[in-house]
Amino acid sequence: MEKTIIIGSGPGGHTAAIYTARANLQPLMFEGFMAGGVAAGGQLTTTTEVENFPGFPKGIGGPELMMLMREQSVNNGCTIKTQTVDKVDLSVSGGPFKVFAGNDTYETHSLIIATGATARRMHVPNEEQLWQKGISACAVCDGGLPMFRNKPLVVIGGGDSAIEEATYLTKFASKVYLVHRRDELRASKAMQKRALENEKMEILWNTVMLDVAGEDVLTGVKLKNVKTDEEYTLEATGLFYAIGHIPNTEFLDGQLETDAQGYIVTKPGTSQTSVEGVFAAGDVQDKIYRQAITSAGSGCMAGLEAERYLAEKGIE
Amino acid sequence: MEKTIIIGSGPGGHTAAIYTARANLQPLMFEGFMAGGVAAGGQLTTTTEVENFPGFPKGIGGPELMMLMREQSVNNGCTIKTQTVDKVDLSVSGGPFKVFAGNDTYETHSLIIATGATARRMHVPNEEQLWQKGISACAVCDGGLPMFRNKPLVVIGGGDSAIEEATYLTKFASKVYLVHRRDELRASKAMQKRALENEKMEILWNTVMLDVAGEDVLTGVKLKNVKTDEEYTLEATGLFYAIGHIPNTEFLDGQLETDAQGYIVTKPGTSQTSVEGVFAAGDVQDKIYRQAITSAGSGCMAGLEAERYLAEKGIE
Repeated sequence: MEKTIIIGSGPGGHTAAIYTARANLQPLMFEGFMAGGVAAGGQLTTTTEVENFPGFPKGIGGPELMMLMREQSVNNGCTIKTQTVDKVDLSVSGGPFKVFAGNDTYETHSLIIATGATARRMHVPNEEQLWQKGISACAVCDGGLPMFRNKPLVVIGGGDSAIEEATYLTKFASKVYLVHRRDELRASKAMQKRALENEKMEILWNTVMLDVAGEDVLTGVKLKNVKTDEEYTLEATGLFYAIGHIPNTEFLDGQLETDAQGYIVTKPGTSQTSVEGVFAAGDVQDKIYRQAITSAGSGCMAGLEAERYLAEKGIE
Repeated sequence: MEKTIIIGSGPGGHTAAIYTARANLQPLMFEGFMAGGVAAGGQLTTTTEVENFPGFPKGIGGPELMMLMREQSVNNGCTIKTQTVDKVDLSVSGGPFKVFAGNDTYETHSLIIATGATARRMHVPNEEQLWQKGISACAVCDGGLPMFRNKPLVVIGGGDSAIEEATYLTKFASKVYLVHRRDELRASKAMQKRALENEKMEILWNTVMLDVAGEDVLTGVKLKNVKTDEEYTLEATGLFYAIGHIPNTEFLDGQLETDAQGYIVTKPGTSQTSVEGVFAAGDVQDKIYRQAITSAGSGCMAGLEAERYLAEKGIE
């Protein structure tokens, strides 16, 4: 019987691991094997340079930062299994809970879920080759990079967050094209007003992206107007997907309260889920901030709360 | 007129600075000059080794970590003034707000407050000399250090958090003495039960600390029983203050909603204060977690929220 199991290995999972390990809880982490379509370490493993994680003034590679965190979890006494959890049994509120991975079943007094979210992509033919070489799913993370300054950029999407990201990018870009497949936006009226009034932004209506162009870095996107069937290549050094994220909560099979989009609902200002003894951290419960540092902060909260929960129950 | 001013220079302030600077808001930070009794950089400058900030598997010195964050803020375009803010004028909800420092007045469209909290100390004669050489104000931060393993430790306090910290320390210590000046605890009944049932914990009732003992590191504490007037030295390698914190909110002069202890009240899950356009991050609004990494996470939230607030108001 474990004292605490952590599912997920991004900044949230590893910070929870560091805190619970230092509290002598001997945490067991399932870091996953290409879980949610990304390597162990989470979304940061799909980025190159991280410039906004505090403590690294020269920036640090995303995979490198996650290797450091993993080393820190292990140094402090966390055991890590490179397996993806298939399902869990949370039917006993207050635990113990069951975790199923491969052919094995594990039992634990407390559980921390930090399985993250996966950004939706279009999966056009040349996307993989140019990923992070001009293509990104996070304007706030990557928008300020030199390669995007005073250049034309493309945002794909039509919701509030697409407008928000496009507006953010107008700070840096010479021009931001918002590519939208319909002739109206899903975004709120206020957001639409911002988009239409912004001189640096142009909305390309009734337009879909067929592919990306470029050898070593992105140089443009291949577009098609679905009304006129016209196909053309638009010059751009940056392509930002803003077509949503998928929280990795399917394995929970509805055993925790989630919102309409599948994000785990936590009591605001805490990491507590709808089941006593189960805590959530990182992007799996955050659709607002989605940053490595906010994820790490919430991982710390989950670690401290799991520790206090176990102490209250007298589990040492 | 500034777009955003940040008051405070701990992990919360600097993470807000990194995010607002990268959003081209040219933030102005007042890092303070011995504000709240500590150097610019905040409470981490009073610690030695930080082992629980994710990304530093070998640990990092507290002052060194804060120098890295400061460098990162400056690299990204934050201007820093080494002055303490005397007062603010938040009378116009939605701003602009006024910030007074020395003989100068600054105006800003948005304001981020990250002035932290200061741990209460006893200020016994030899305390300064042995600070962080066996004396700490944070059991979670320092309790796991090798110097405290299987050794007798002393906690000063009598409230819920004192019991929580003492209980936490029993994981590592050979024995934890809780020194309390009265013959009953302020802690809740449940917490008292935990303390009394814990075999590793002993409560020294009616006892006050007169001084600390030790040359290079703490070796004991000098105690006095106030009922019997008996004075004696108790052997200990660790002394943990758990007599509360003072949030650094006096300069606000009641212009923001605070709780009974003076902590700024934020809308749960956000950094929004009671005045539109004013955001709070870090320990000045957190009496639960109080960690460098949670402070940094909330600083990121405040930075992103200030940026979105300004974008909505059309301030570029």
